[in-house]
Amino acid sequence: MSQQQAQQKNKKAKTAITPTREDDFPEWYQQVIKAADMAENAPVRGCMIIKPYGYAIWELIQKIFDGMIKDHGVENAYFPLLIPLSYISKEAEHVDGFAKECAVVTHHRLEEAEGGGLKPAGKLAEPLIIRPTSETIIGESFAKWINSYRDLPMKLNQWCNVMRWEMRPRLFLRTSEFLWQEGHNAFATAEEAEEDARKMVEAYRKFNEDYLAIPLIVGEKTAEERFPGAVATYTIEAIMQDGKALQAATSHNLGQTFSKSADISFQDQDGQNKYAWTTSWGSTTRLIGALVMVHADDDGLVLPPKIAPQQVVILPISRGEENAELIAFCQKIEADLRKKGIRVKLDNSDAKTPDKMWKTIKQGVPVRVEIGQREMDEGKLTFVPRDLGRDGKQLVDADQFVDDIESILDRIQQSIFDRAKTRMLGHIKTTESLAELRQIFEAGEAVQVLIPTDLTKEPEYEAIQNDFSVTSRCMPFAENGEKVLVGKAY
Amino acid sequence: MSQQQAQQKNKKAKTAITPTREDDFPEWYQQVIKAADMAENAPVRGCMIIKPYGYAIWELIQKIFDGMIKDHGVENAYFPLLIPLSYISKEAEHVDGFAKECAVVTHHRLEEAEGGGLKPAGKLAEPLIIRPTSETIIGESFAKWINSYRDLPMKLNQWCNVMRWEMRPRLFLRTSEFLWQEGHNAFATAEEAEEDARKMVEAYRKFNEDYLAIPLIVGEKTAEERFPGAVATYTIEAIMQDGKALQAATSHNLGQTFSKSADISFQDQDGQNKYAWTTSWGSTTRLIGALVMVHADDDGLVLPPKIAPQQVVILPISRGEENAELIAFCQKIEADLRKKGIRVKLDNSDAKTPDKMWKTIKQGVPVRVEIGQREMDEGKLTFVPRDLGRDGKQLVDADQFVDDIESILDRIQQSIFDRAKTRMLGHIKTTESLAELRQIFEAGEAVQVLIPTDLTKEPEYEAIQNDFSVTSRCMPFAENGEKVLVGKAY
Repeated sequence: MSQQQAQQKNKKAKTAITPTREDDFPEWYQQVIKAADMAENAPVRGCMIIKPYGYAIWELIQKIFDGMIKDHGVENAYFPLLIPLSYISKEAEHVDGFAKECAVVTHHRLEEAEGGGLKPAGKLAEPLIIRPTSETIIGESFAKWINSYRDLPMKLNQWCNVMRWEMRPRLFLRTSEFLWQEGHNAFATAEEAEEDARKMVEAYRKFNEDYLAIPLIVGEKTAEERFPGAVATYTIEAIMQDGKALQAATSHNLGQTFSKSADISFQDQDGQNKYAWTTSWGSTTRLIGALVMVHADDDGLVLPPKIAPQQVVILPISRGEENAELIAFCQKIEADLRKKGIRVKLDNSDAKTPDKMWKTIKQGVPVRVEIGQREMDEGKLTFVPRDLGRDGKQLVDADQFVDDIESILDRIQQSIFDRAKTRMLGHIKTTESLAELRQIFEAGEAVQVLIPTDLTKEPEYEAIQNDFSVTSRCMPFAENGEKVLVGKAY
Repeated sequence: MSQQQAQQKNKKAKTAITPTREDDFPEWYQQVIKAADMAENAPVRGCMIIKPYGYAIWELIQKIFDGMIKDHGVENAYFPLLIPLSYISKEAEHVDGFAKECAVVTHHRLEEAEGGGLKPAGKLAEPLIIRPTSETIIGESFAKWINSYRDLPMKLNQWCNVMRWEMRPRLFLRTSEFLWQEGHNAFATAEEAEEDARKMVEAYRKFNEDYLAIPLIVGEKTAEERFPGAVATYTIEAIMQDGKALQAATSHNLGQTFSKSADISFQDQDGQNKYAWTTSWGSTTRLIGALVMVHADDDGLVLPPKIAPQQVVILPISRGEENAELIAFCQKIEADLRKKGIRVKLDNSDAKTPDKMWKTIKQGVPVRVEIGQREMDEGKLTFVPRDLGRDGKQLVDADQFVDDIESILDRIQQSIFDRAKTRMLGHIKTTESLAELRQIFEAGEAVQVLIPTDLTKEPEYEAIQNDFSVTSRCMPFAENGEKVLVGKAY
């Protein structure tokens, strides 16, 4: 082994996550999730157990986004898990490319099998499907509930589990069961539906950029990539550190397609009977996968403060025996921070200090505070921001830290966003020709490329899509529909 | 028709709900839910659609109780919907009286059937069960996650949907799919588990009495009524207006029964390998059914302010044309109340005033505010508390109302609780003999009776249970286990 190799190996050994992003991005992703104790595979293939730390992130996502949609006048409801097969069959007739990977319930009882164990019994007259989406059942309800223009707009959302059988599962990114919100809105006019679909994609943009610190390409799907039956599909595309895109949420203007198939009609002010104009919009636990792949580094998760279950973790560094005075000092700071609404945890467990320290790093805690005897004697503390690591280490007055905590967290939030934005832009190239597009993908110069929209009608464009497994991600709003972002995606 | 009959009919016609509680309690219950727009039956038999108003109550239940359990150090997680049949079979071996009414998934795909439509395809090697509870999967996870005394206590909860096939469904009370929280805690010692099981039943008591204003009999289940495998089952029993009991939540000390069957063991501080001591505790959307049956009256729902989605609804009473000044006056009051954290809604829709008024009554809104031109000119408003109706109508200064709103709501909360408590006590008799117990049930003098615990060992007690369809509800803590409450239950 050369000295250089030895140094490199030594350097590599310092990262908490093995392999690194560069070595093996997909495996790094799994290891970050494991090291942060966020989730693990369930015994049923394709399903996952979301552990408390991962679920706490989802709870924050729910809380914040739920507040945003309620401000839009959306109400939550709950529709049943099981959908009659006939509903799905009806839907399948209307929708080309309808997904058929569904969990099917055929029996409603267990009885003792010969030779021990249990076996299915009580065969159902009609099989039932575990909802892959609630489009059909909500459509039927809207048809019943909407009769007059007075009933409009109707804006309903539900937070629930859905199921789509998954052959190549990956934690958070692609699981047979996942958690999501699905919004379904109905309006009296085409204009309101279009405005709403754009409003909801803007809500997703705001939530992802301002809270998850995930920079986005926001735009419209091309006709080929549109949700089946939709007039327009708006999307937020996030770019992972490996350059692949991830569709983080979509908002569909469904026009009258679904209101006609579900018979959602109303008597308008002019006495005429009309079909409603509907939209739907959804986002899922995939967002947590995006958070990991956009922000995490070779030491583990990096969480934007606004979505971190713990924004500050305090570690008392006592040498040897328990130090009641030190603990009391730490508790005082914890209480002061909590009073300011900061999510703070004092880690007073009997684990070893380096283990505790690495836990905060691997879990992406935005600010780690270390307090030893010397700091306490001077009324000070040391803090390390997760985004800068040791380079950002500071010894400050404890009172000052409490006073400044919001601006410390704001700086981290902004810095994480800025870094992600720089990375995102670094993954995107622009070209005006399909020949060059082919060259770029061939040479691996970039994973995402902006090309003129007109070029997507050329046969060569389809050939490129097939040859490099790339797809049209969206026509960015920023380009006024004149360009299409094309690239690999999760 | 005699004059008296005519009067009675006239009087009856004044109630918003038909039939009344007295006429037909079960049907009255369904009609209250319908009139309040809380839920309706889903197309899949036994399942329900929880409409926005009903779901908003569930959201408040979740928010408040979730805060309480987090204060107890419980963390939320998410376990998968589907459980392998082998897990359930294993459980069934350990648990006598194991419920076998489960939804069974046997296929994971749909394919086109001959002659149109879709049919199940992709038969699974092992059938999967939609969780009737997550005991088994959480047990398996605990076995994996708990290795040392340092991992204890572990306290996890999940909010989710579960499914138990239901042959005689009733909205909220008994549905095939329902929403619930299930808590699962593990400890190093028997004492901690026992303390925890009692702590959780106390949390349920506090939540039900202080927020839902539902007075309770809190106690321990008799050995016969205990959760299969549990060392002790603690319960909160609410008494409905028809005298029947409803088990509103339970908390089980499972001893080492489940840790032994799931192999949840840990190395203790003394180096010994030991089985953990576990508890579980749950409550469901049944609570909403209890809310209805404890508080609602012949005009519809009556909601305790702490759980009311809207605590105050403001109705502008304009005669004829739109009155911008009146609306502005109402909006000012709405804003002032909201600033104080009150859940308030200004109903400015173009529905007719009596319809709006009746809507607030049927939905159990604690305080209805009516403001007309005259009130506005004097800076006043009229308010009607739902619990007192017209008798409680008051004309007051608008500013004073805003100042006093908390105490107005507090009075209503207390009054609703007190009324429910009086009713509850009215349904309970006491006797020292089984002969008298039989007489009481025969004569219909009471639905619930307290008897000495010793009597439950007599064969005559079992005969009475069978003859009158009554069961031991619990041994109330207040009676130190010396008495048993016996009666009908939902």
